Amino acid sequence: MGAGNDLRRLCAELVVVRASGHLGDAEREYPQWELANAELQRLLAAGVGGVILLGGRASELRLRTRQLRQWAGQPLLLCADVEEGVGQRFGGASWLVPPLALGRLYAGKPERALALAERYGRCTGREARTTGLNWVLGPVCDVNNNPANPVINVRAWGEEPAATGALAAAFIRGLQAEGVLSCAKHFPGHGDTSVDSHLELPRLSHDRTRLDAVELPPFRAAIAAGVGAVMTAHLVLSALDPERPATLSPAVLTGLLRQELGFAGLVVTDALVMEAISGHYGSGEAAVLAVEAGADLVLMPADADAAIEALVAAVETGRLRRRQLEASAQRRRHALGLTAQPDDAAELWQPIEPDAGLAGELVAATLAPRAGGQPIRPLAGTAGLNLLRLDDALAAPFLPTRSPALQLPETAGFRALLLDGRSPSPWSGEPDAPLALERLGAGPLLLQLFVRGNPFRGSAAGREPWAAAVQQLQGAGRLAGLVVYGSPYLWEQLEPLLLPGIPAVYSPGQMPLAQRQALAALGLGHTDGPGGFTD
Amino acid sequence: MGAGNDLRRLCAELVVVRASGHLGDAEREYPQWELANAELQRLLAAGVGGVILLGGRASELRLRTRQLRQWAGQPLLLCADVEEGVGQRFGGASWLVPPLALGRLYAGKPERALALAERYGRCTGREARTTGLNWVLGPVCDVNNNPANPVINVRAWGEEPAATGALAAAFIRGLQAEGVLSCAKHFPGHGDTSVDSHLELPRLSHDRTRLDAVELPPFRAAIAAGVGAVMTAHLVLSALDPERPATLSPAVLTGLLRQELGFAGLVVTDALVMEAISGHYGSGEAAVLAVEAGADLVLMPADADAAIEALVAAVETGRLRRRQLEASAQRRRHALGLTAQPDDAAELWQPIEPDAGLAGELVAATLAPRAGGQPIRPLAGTAGLNLLRLDDALAAPFLPTRSPALQLPETAGFRALLLDGRSPSPWSGEPDAPLALERLGAGPLLLQLFVRGNPFRGSAAGREPWAAAVQQLQGAGRLAGLVVYGSPYLWEQLEPLLLPGIPAVYSPGQMPLAQRQALAALGLGHTDGPGGFTD
Repeated sequence: MGAGNDLRRLCAELVVVRASGHLGDAEREYPQWELANAELQRLLAAGVGGVILLGGRASELRLRTRQLRQWAGQPLLLCADVEEGVGQRFGGASWLVPPLALGRLYAGKPERALALAERYGRCTGREARTTGLNWVLGPVCDVNNNPANPVINVRAWGEEPAATGALAAAFIRGLQAEGVLSCAKHFPGHGDTSVDSHLELPRLSHDRTRLDAVELPPFRAAIAAGVGAVMTAHLVLSALDPERPATLSPAVLTGLLRQELGFAGLVVTDALVMEAISGHYGSGEAAVLAVEAGADLVLMPADADAAIEALVAAVETGRLRRRQLEASAQRRRHALGLTAQPDDAAELWQPIEPDAGLAGELVAATLAPRAGGQPIRPLAGTAGLNLLRLDDALAAPFLPTRSPALQLPETAGFRALLLDGRSPSPWSGEPDAPLALERLGAGPLLLQLFVRGNPFRGSAAGREPWAAAVQQLQGAGRLAGLVVYGSPYLWEQLEPLLLPGIPAVYSPGQMPLAQRQALAALGLGHTDGPGGFTD
Repeated sequence: MGAGNDLRRLCAELVVVRASGHLGDAEREYPQWELANAELQRLLAAGVGGVILLGGRASELRLRTRQLRQWAGQPLLLCADVEEGVGQRFGGASWLVPPLALGRLYAGKPERALALAERYGRCTGREARTTGLNWVLGPVCDVNNNPANPVINVRAWGEEPAATGALAAAFIRGLQAEGVLSCAKHFPGHGDTSVDSHLELPRLSHDRTRLDAVELPPFRAAIAAGVGAVMTAHLVLSALDPERPATLSPAVLTGLLRQELGFAGLVVTDALVMEAISGHYGSGEAAVLAVEAGADLVLMPADADAAIEALVAAVETGRLRRRQLEASAQRRRHALGLTAQPDDAAELWQPIEPDAGLAGELVAATLAPRAGGQPIRPLAGTAGLNLLRLDDALAAPFLPTRSPALQLPETAGFRALLLDGRSPSPWSGEPDAPLALERLGAGPLLLQLFVRGNPFRGSAAGREPWAAAVQQLQGAGRLAGLVVYGSPYLWEQLEPLLLPGIPAVYSPGQMPLAQRQALAALGLGHTDGPGGFTD
């Protein structure tokens, strides 16, 4: 192998490519973003150092990671955005409440919240290991102090710096105790944006004093807890670097993160395909700028070959020093050395059983039932309506056909009416009586809103006149109950409007386990029935 | 092991239990019907002879079947209702057009249809083997001569006896050449029912002459082709046995099937949990009656232990002869001996790539575009509506978020409007103008109807006034095009109503591959683009 190949291999090692968690090419859900197996094999043979995985079930992921390791022939970083448990993205593993739920619990019960956050990390680490992941792209260390944040929101561990930092550190301790790397993101803080960086580049004008007070403390706490990696944010912080987004800024990555905060672990960019970067720079230039700024690893360049070639050329022309890339590769190998060895002797057909105990405990600890609500009484026949609002019925893993949010109200006489972004409109256009009730049907109406900030999509439901609708339903004597699954901000807007006695509950989690407990709080079904942990 | 245990083991061998295709208990979609792993392990250790699997992806199924074989410690019948390719029920494998599509092709091109039916069987057999199944519960040999049939419909290989028999035989040859058992069903013929036997017991009054002319020929053809098993129907044929459903009738199973038709293979009941049986007989009594009638295997008794105990007791009291059960067990072992050995050396992480070539060829051969339709022209912005009707958006594997039926019209300016059984009603209540167009939005409207007979559910859309809606849309000059996916009967009702030039197409298949070809026939997108076989 000549020096050229050697350099190319070094550059490849710093690239993390994206692949589907499914084994076969035909199963990819986003074939334009997920490499086909032939490409993946070629890039892994060329020395690409990591793969980020999305899609597929946990049992498939375990096969997929073994497949990728076979193809790579070298230790590989295998990562995923499993911020809310491995089951958030890979069905069959544990799906936990969003971190912000513990951030809120922390306000009243800090010790309980910290203990749960550490178990949250333990559970995620254990299941990451079982499925072959050695790097979890969490915790989110952004302080979600902007309720309108479309991209962070309930993914954050808190709304103020102390809670966020303490809980993120507890999560990191739990996760890394299982031999899995963590990743604090999105440096230096993405909590106060109202723009989705998947779609455009946010700009913030916070001065350094404010950053030291709000954005930076959770990252300091994560570094103190030994976090293995830090992921950069695609946003411009004018006070630190008026021109370049943090991901590409030497002032932010080298000046602030490495030198001032003293972080010695892996610095990884957020996905370079995101519009905030790819809309302004080509794949090759973005990769070179990121490494120049101080990143060790570049994540998901739109074109991995172009990124590798551009890094090679930058070394050859003297724009980047080879010694810097070697130090990055050394950091990668050191980080890998800290992870548990994959257990290739394990029988792949052993089931991955989720931690239903922890998942249920997290729901119970963070559910917020309204005081004084009267239990919903069963109706005769199907005399009532169960109106569910969600973003996309075709992509709602939290709502299988037999989920409690459908079945428990049906048992009590509430017929399901499902509204998503593609349904015929339920709105009348009138500000005071916004729901066109004559089209929706008669009878008492149970309202279940599945609304949370979702990257790429925002949430249409969050922009709809639900406050007026709640008042309209109460005026007509038809509001049987209210559940908000996800956004605490929507709950805080609606809960004060409720008349006395109307049963209502806020559930941070949207998954079936959370539905069962939330509806039990309204008098529908039980939390501890025989079917409790089977969905 | 005493004689009692020996007999119990013999009886257990004749029982086929149901399990989920997922590895873990928590992943079961129907926990009330699918045994938990502890129960499954206990029953397999007790000698239960077969498992029917449902749910999960193909890569999971391959793990699951290995797991079950480990637990059983004896050769096991592992079966599934994969009548339309393994991908119909286990994502990632090939999903083929419904058999009736080839029944219709046969009318004009018998040789082509027969060749495709054999390849259909080959493909299904090959993928069954790869995923660890050794028994495919197909072909459906019922002659679907009743368009209102809610349970057979497009699952049948034909609408008249000759086509049905010839195609079923070709499928059997292809499947069994791959070392996988087939199963002709539902004996002596379920094609002329308008009642779903999952929900109640159908009664038919056909005399023997009619049975010989219509229902029996496909079963004779299947037997001549060497079909490994025959499954019984849960329906009463008064001319053969005025009291007992075929599943429990000695006259049907022993008299007609064994003695008269000379079938020497495995006779298996349809699922005994179905209401047509379980509504009238307990698990134990149903199993004893079925074996007494001549069944070798009892499928999915509601309570497997009760079925085994009842069989033991029936032998001990002399109601059943032990020799008969031994002969059934011998038939089971003989059938297993005909299947290919499971390939336990195969790397489980090797992807299962579907046969996109055959799947696409089947779509192309059976797609029926209307002659003279003018291609749909792209609209500016989102000026048009893409109205999709389906049964259940929460359980629509054919319609992932990025499916052609959504994406191709959107690219041409048609915004999706999704109607399922839980949507707000789109109907006005007027017979002549049934669609409430003022609620649905303005602009040209592309109508895509996903309608086919589905067991348990029927199809609500099949009972809606689509004929009047088509005329209403044409009267308003708003019908941009029509696609019917699934039911040929709905297509035959709507197609004659179309004005000249309106583009329309009938697609037997509902899967993304079929959507892409169907919409290409309307001028939307291409069949051979780079993304062609990736969804």
